[in-house]
Amino acid sequence: MKLKIAILPGDGIGKEITDQGVKVLEAIATKFKHDITFSYADVGATAIEKTGSPLPDESLEICKKADAVLFGAIGDPKYDNNPDAKIRPEQGLLKLRKGLGLYANIRPIKVYDDLTYKSPLKEKVIKNTDFVVLRELSGGMYYGENKVSEDGLSASDECIYNAKEIDRVAHLAFSMAKQRKKKLTLIDKANMFETSRLWRRRIMLIAKEYPEVTLNYMFVDNASMQMILNPRQFDVILTENLFGDILSEEASAIAGSIGLSASASIGEKMVLFEPIHGAYVKAKGKNIANPLATILSVAMLLEHFELFEEADALKTAVNKSIELQITTPDLNTSQKFSTSDVGTFISEFILDKKNVFTHI
Amino acid sequence: MKLKIAILPGDGIGKEITDQGVKVLEAIATKFKHDITFSYADVGATAIEKTGSPLPDESLEICKKADAVLFGAIGDPKYDNNPDAKIRPEQGLLKLRKGLGLYANIRPIKVYDDLTYKSPLKEKVIKNTDFVVLRELSGGMYYGENKVSEDGLSASDECIYNAKEIDRVAHLAFSMAKQRKKKLTLIDKANMFETSRLWRRRIMLIAKEYPEVTLNYMFVDNASMQMILNPRQFDVILTENLFGDILSEEASAIAGSIGLSASASIGEKMVLFEPIHGAYVKAKGKNIANPLATILSVAMLLEHFELFEEADALKTAVNKSIELQITTPDLNTSQKFSTSDVGTFISEFILDKKNVFTHI
Ligand SMILES: CC(C)[C@H](C(=O)O)[C@@H](O)C(=O)O
Ligand SMILES: CC(C)[C@H](C(=O)O)[C@@H](O)C(=O)O
Repeated sequence: MKLKIAILPGDGIGKEITDQGVKVLEAIATKFKHDITFSYADVGATAIEKTGSPLPDESLEICKKADAVLFGAIGDPKYDNNPDAKIRPEQGLLKLRKGLGLYANIRPIKVYDDLTYKSPLKEKVIKNTDFVVLRELSGGMYYGENKVSEDGLSASDECIYNAKEIDRVAHLAFSMAKQRKKKLTLIDKANMFETSRLWRRRIMLIAKEYPEVTLNYMFVDNASMQMILNPRQFDVILTENLFGDILSEEASAIAGSIGLSASASIGEKMVLFEPIHGAYVKAKGKNIANPLATILSVAMLLEHFELFEEADALKTAVNKSIELQITTPDLNTSQKFSTSDVGTFISEFILDKKNVFTHI
Repeated sequence: MKLKIAILPGDGIGKEITDQGVKVLEAIATKFKHDITFSYADVGATAIEKTGSPLPDESLEICKKADAVLFGAIGDPKYDNNPDAKIRPEQGLLKLRKGLGLYANIRPIKVYDDLTYKSPLKEKVIKNTDFVVLRELSGGMYYGENKVSEDGLSASDECIYNAKEIDRVAHLAFSMAKQRKKKLTLIDKANMFETSRLWRRRIMLIAKEYPEVTLNYMFVDNASMQMILNPRQFDVILTENLFGDILSEEASAIAGSIGLSASASIGEKMVLFEPIHGAYVKAKGKNIANPLATILSVAMLLEHFELFEEADALKTAVNKSIELQITTPDLNTSQKFSTSDVGTFISEFILDKKNVFTHI
């Protein structure tokens, strides 16, 4: 297969981790005889520094010309701590999501048996947890009108949704549930908000087309609790943009490490893959960031192109690295491997170079 | 002391649990020779059924004439599952908060050593957790304009804040931190929203008046993760209305049981105390609901009126009930006490009637 992948490292540790993603993709290409090429583009604080824009038009073009995007991370404390900054790295991510028409973010939460010790939850609570958070990505408060008064003493943000936006992601949610345990949970705050009630109305309609899927509802406050009290109850979670941001981060924490959480963002034409974690600017250049979430995002990329054997080879290699503790310090205390060590181990393992890391 | 308490049972299990609150307050009155009187008023689905309004004017008047309000719970699936209902129980709660000027909701999260086994978190993670969530209660998306289009195909909700609303609760947060471990965490999404940036600007200003308090910031998505990865890092959490709703529910889950989580809502003139949990309409009338969150809300009420000895007597009795497992089924598996058993045990214990429950 011929694949063109746009690599957008972004900020902080973004470069280090996407480098490992590329390394692993190159190993897959060699082993399975695919023609995978890469094009690089800037986004975020990095792009602001170079061009003044958090997403230069050229970067968006590079993405559009690719078959898929591999994204690193975005954000910089320099902007976070300055509430008056007008140009912000995150605008680049939003423009990218909009520009590529990415309307759904998929975050699978699966607990690795070897890593239940890393979870803050008790083993009996977390064991066998396996669900997916489907977050709407193109609407809600992220894209409504944001206002500040002239005197700077009041502000507002608007959460806005229309039926089309909801229907599109709802169909995806039902199809996913159909292929899994056939349970869909819509998370909203329909006892308070009009947008939530619009979500419920649309879902109730669409549910009729998927009689084999059991639909239930949960308020977002209750959901943030249920997620830790009984995560096994979930199969597919569907929710709006902001609730999805909060809940998917909570969900990845229960799985043991956010350093393992991958995600895919889906559009009509484009797809983007990225780790859930942030830019950890403090760790930048230290070669200590965990590349597994990025590498597992690459697995989702391969699966997207129906390269299942390839994805399996990659995941086997990741499992091996966890089993042998060839992992970064966040995942193990005894041995200390670097970001690039982990990427190298996984790609060499894919290439059957079993004699690498024999010093272990 | 002379105290007039308005009791608003609300919906579902509200009546059963506030009955225990009253029982315990009566025991305190007898034991410590206070003159505590009660007046009752309807709110929520119960009020809608009787009067058509989720908060009849009369109910608000009864509250205003009292020194404090003890609130049960609100909500009914009948309305939750009907996105088209125009009159809703929750409107009563919002009108009450507004009408009484309640601008801050305080939810202390403290882990009982005897109950770490109930927490979904590992003991090493949860042990010694002791923080307070301070949720702004009078603004944000709860009070912005909610709109649906004529054709019902689009909707919006507005999150709105002004400096005055933020300053008021921020001062409370800093004062609380000053009296505790001197650490304040503002939780927002300042990398995305104007209202969050307004929060940061105001807090930065106000922080100057409290040099002894260490202020730090956290994005809400990260906070939902940090809450379970490392809850001990928190002392006082300050956040806006909706984030507070989500995070305080998550926080009470980590403490072992939402059935134990009390809260106080503070206004310029009025105070309201309520358990964090909902109306559990399914359990209504079954005498199985855990009354401890309500009874611990009564402890907060006593502390508010500086009746510290009384609050201590109450809390000692609650600890005793937990120690002896004279608790409802949600907290223990071996013995099965009813809602009213637990209330009776605690009030009799306060009254030194040590021979009650000798069958244990
Ligand atoms: C960086 C930020 C704008 C972004 C979001 O909130 O969507 C991030 O938290 C994410 O989840 O991808
Ligand atoms: C019932 C509902 C409107 C309410 C809220 O969201 O404020 C509840 O969840 C709470 O936290 O008191």
